[in-house]
Amino acid sequence: MSASAPSVSKFGCLYGVGVGPGDPELISIKGLRCLQQVPIVAFPAGLKGQPGVAERIIEPWLSSTQHRLSLSFPYVQEQSVLEQAWHLAAEKVGQHLGQGQDVTFACEGDVSFFSTFTYLSQAVQTLYPQVRVETIPGICSPMAAAAAIGLPLTMQRDRLAILPALYCPDDLMAVMTWAEVVVLMKVGSVYRQVWSLLNQAQLLPHSYVVVQASASQQRIYQDLQHHPQLELPYFSLLIIYVKAAREKMPHDIGGLPHP
Amino acid sequence: MSASAPSVSKFGCLYGVGVGPGDPELISIKGLRCLQQVPIVAFPAGLKGQPGVAERIIEPWLSSTQHRLSLSFPYVQEQSVLEQAWHLAAEKVGQHLGQGQDVTFACEGDVSFFSTFTYLSQAVQTLYPQVRVETIPGICSPMAAAAAIGLPLTMQRDRLAILPALYCPDDLMAVMTWAEVVVLMKVGSVYRQVWSLLNQAQLLPHSYVVVQASASQQRIYQDLQHHPQLELPYFSLLIIYVKAAREKMPHDIGGLPHP
Repeated sequence: MSASAPSVSKFGCLYGVGVGPGDPELISIKGLRCLQQVPIVAFPAGLKGQPGVAERIIEPWLSSTQHRLSLSFPYVQEQSVLEQAWHLAAEKVGQHLGQGQDVTFACEGDVSFFSTFTYLSQAVQTLYPQVRVETIPGICSPMAAAAAIGLPLTMQRDRLAILPALYCPDDLMAVMTWAEVVVLMKVGSVYRQVWSLLNQAQLLPHSYVVVQASASQQRIYQDLQHHPQLELPYFSLLIIYVKAAREKMPHDIGGLPHP
Repeated sequence: MSASAPSVSKFGCLYGVGVGPGDPELISIKGLRCLQQVPIVAFPAGLKGQPGVAERIIEPWLSSTQHRLSLSFPYVQEQSVLEQAWHLAAEKVGQHLGQGQDVTFACEGDVSFFSTFTYLSQAVQTLYPQVRVETIPGICSPMAAAAAIGLPLTMQRDRLAILPALYCPDDLMAVMTWAEVVVLMKVGSVYRQVWSLLNQAQLLPHSYVVVQASASQQRIYQDLQHHPQLELPYFSLLIIYVKAAREKMPHDIGGLPHP
């Protein structure tokens, strides 16, 4: 398959579908239709030979005649390594698109929210500018985590901040002066550091860790003062209800930042 | 119906279902099942006798035998008026729960994210502490808006801030110094003020208004420098890609805040 451009009509369409946070039933009707109507279904490869999160979500919905296309996206920071992986994945997908086959890429959560699909679709559009790309949104993990905890994520005038996996502690302290609710995505690798900060700010009683929200492996940790160390998998997030601590502490008695 | 407690088994279950941003097909499989299996379906009443957003989303999915329960939640700020409405709505729902009927409350977007369901379920649990409440998350409007625009909402190290309808301009300026992406919910009533700020910060070319994302009435406004005034309905949001402006302006040449 060459990157040179055949006629527009020859190309299949690339669909990006957010398949939701983990429970296969949290895919949307539209996403499911889009998943089931294509001959080729792609998804991020899992780690160590295990099926990935998106793959586990969609497996119950696929038929035996649909071709599974597992794409490798390494969990690294090096931009050059990532770009090479996106390029290779785009070529793999392009082989099918170039034969006129529609391809649906399934990604966990939502397709526009820290999603692998963003990079894949950009790489596909660079290689094959004529390809039509459609995205179908999905339920993202912060919403599923709040539902699992049984607390609203945001109410009325709450300001919400969502931080990606890699942030510096100063950043977290700064945002806590400003937001009523803070979500830390993929918190596993920095959990100990974050725990110390939350301890200092007296926010541990108002913080929750949710692992693989809504999936069968879901776990919830609360009363985090008893959990200074947790070994958390990649898809773990932390919700901090900063406002709850503010309401309990009208005077500046602790390390808690106040707006 | 009295608020005194009959035996636990007498009560039906209250389900809160996020039915997604507007397209009826963006409800989840689980949400749809929960919607279709109950005898009583409640939702926020629309304005001026028109069907509300959630009501429009679910209507294609309901059967003629299901009882529709329209609940009034006034669009006001006064806490006492709101609390009275929540109490009345909880009593209406309680009449059915008390007869052992399950009730599903449908709300647009996600059920934990600035959702009327939060207040309804709190009022129900105050009046009828034995009622079991279950929440099923949904696709929220920022995700659907990003999919509609065709741009990712967040990538890699982006920090996302989501502000509710009512905020002061100072707040917006402060958050733009910190976040890469900012979403302003229900921006209609403050659009002119926000426009002036974005103009001053040279962010208008990187901002998008999305009205009723994914619904048949969806509208997208870009190149906002040409739209200093817009009459926007209640469910309108604005996405500001602060980072795009930063990337284009490596030197501090404008009013744009820099971290």
